[in-house]
Amino acid sequence: MKVTILQMDVVKDKEANLKTVENYFKTSLSGADLALLPEMFNCPYEVGLFSDYAEEEGGRTYQFLADLAKEYQVAIVGGSIPEKAGDKIYNTSYIFNKEGLCVGKHRKTHLFDVDIKGGITFKESDVLSPGQAYTLVDLGFTKIGVCICYDMRFPEFIRQMVLKGAQLVTIPAAFNTTTGPAHWSVTARARAIDNQCFVALASPARSKTSTYQAYGHSLMVNPWGEVLGEMDKEPGCLTLDLDLREIETVRQALPLLKHRKEEVYG
Amino acid sequence: MKVTILQMDVVKDKEANLKTVENYFKTSLSGADLALLPEMFNCPYEVGLFSDYAEEEGGRTYQFLADLAKEYQVAIVGGSIPEKAGDKIYNTSYIFNKEGLCVGKHRKTHLFDVDIKGGITFKESDVLSPGQAYTLVDLGFTKIGVCICYDMRFPEFIRQMVLKGAQLVTIPAAFNTTTGPAHWSVTARARAIDNQCFVALASPARSKTSTYQAYGHSLMVNPWGEVLGEMDKEPGCLTLDLDLREIETVRQALPLLKHRKEEVYG
Repeated sequence: MKVTILQMDVVKDKEANLKTVENYFKTSLSGADLALLPEMFNCPYEVGLFSDYAEEEGGRTYQFLADLAKEYQVAIVGGSIPEKAGDKIYNTSYIFNKEGLCVGKHRKTHLFDVDIKGGITFKESDVLSPGQAYTLVDLGFTKIGVCICYDMRFPEFIRQMVLKGAQLVTIPAAFNTTTGPAHWSVTARARAIDNQCFVALASPARSKTSTYQAYGHSLMVNPWGEVLGEMDKEPGCLTLDLDLREIETVRQALPLLKHRKEEVYG
Repeated sequence: MKVTILQMDVVKDKEANLKTVENYFKTSLSGADLALLPEMFNCPYEVGLFSDYAEEEGGRTYQFLADLAKEYQVAIVGGSIPEKAGDKIYNTSYIFNKEGLCVGKHRKTHLFDVDIKGGITFKESDVLSPGQAYTLVDLGFTKIGVCICYDMRFPEFIRQMVLKGAQLVTIPAAFNTTTGPAHWSVTARARAIDNQCFVALASPARSKTSTYQAYGHSLMVNPWGEVLGEMDKEPGCLTLDLDLREIETVRQALPLLKHRKEEVYG
């Protein structure tokens, strides 16, 4: 299964962001089965902008992604965008299959409210409402889990997707230059090791102009916890062939999921 | 709070192993509040030997540790030893406070049954019975979680100790030269990061004569996931001052435990 991640520069002009995605599909898809976009790929990651950029389900960006998936016959985890639903705004990922049908959506469930001295201060919950569940999507050729950024910090959340059959956990995310170097790759690797599944993280590129400095470092990890590929901070893409049979190999050698003892976890 | 880990060479002669521990207390305790010994420190880590070395609660090794704790006024997480209880054998850690009282015990709950092609094959459950719960111990000056080796691979297990107040998770363990390089430090760091607590792993030294090649690499990690100190494979000890206030600092900056959503974890 070929997976590609677009680590793109996100700018203020929404249409320019969509153009970046389109160009990437035109030139760099390399026969991928699944394309993964970063968190807030059509809107700079600033709390004050989410409302202006928000779209209702089926809106401009949704339709754009559906068309791309169908045209290029590639499944898409559509990073995330601000979703407007009634008077609420969510941080939402729409997932499309190779026919361009929306087969799932994930609303970021754990909102990023932090205040790190000398580092980053950010409060998503000032503007965003949280989702209420983990997301598992059947793409036909594989089942994937989808969660967004801060969601990945909660092992219980990832665990559920995998117990329900996720072979790959896809995570549009935008860690920053404080939490990124400290926690990004170690958390991704631990999720892969504990759950013996593939993990893919898609970040925006580091932007010179944005107030929020994304970490970049989009990466993919195999079920043994090895980093198969990791980008730096520049725009570009990472494309890898994942051998899904590795999941079974690892689980047979070290049967972690079979050895879980639900009855002692309270 | 000063914590010391003894990464000792475990040999076939049980009394020689106790002598190693005693010498370490005599010469290298450095005013520690808590001493941590490795998994199966009085017995080589071989399934075929556990029955021969097993002791009932209150036996030779238990009493030896109680006396040491009292004499040196240091709390001890007594690594682990084979415990005989009726017709069963457990992989058990006894924990003593500074007065030499046994204030807790942990029986390894997840048994290590693996078969890695070209790597390690081991089946604890051929001989051992599993424990049935996580272990939290109040030492007076801090609360600690205790689990043994393979137990640490289950994030749900560690989570419970921390939700109940563990500030430090102590893990006597004996990863090997296959799983050690791949998973040892990344798992320890992820447990610390996710739970925003200290984590200490105590391994036997790598033995030239043993059939089981322990990884070594005893280490301590702070609540931000930084490795504060890590040994190599040789015998020795690692002693560090842990500042427990770091737990609160990290949890205030990035309130992961507060942001958990039990209701969506199924």
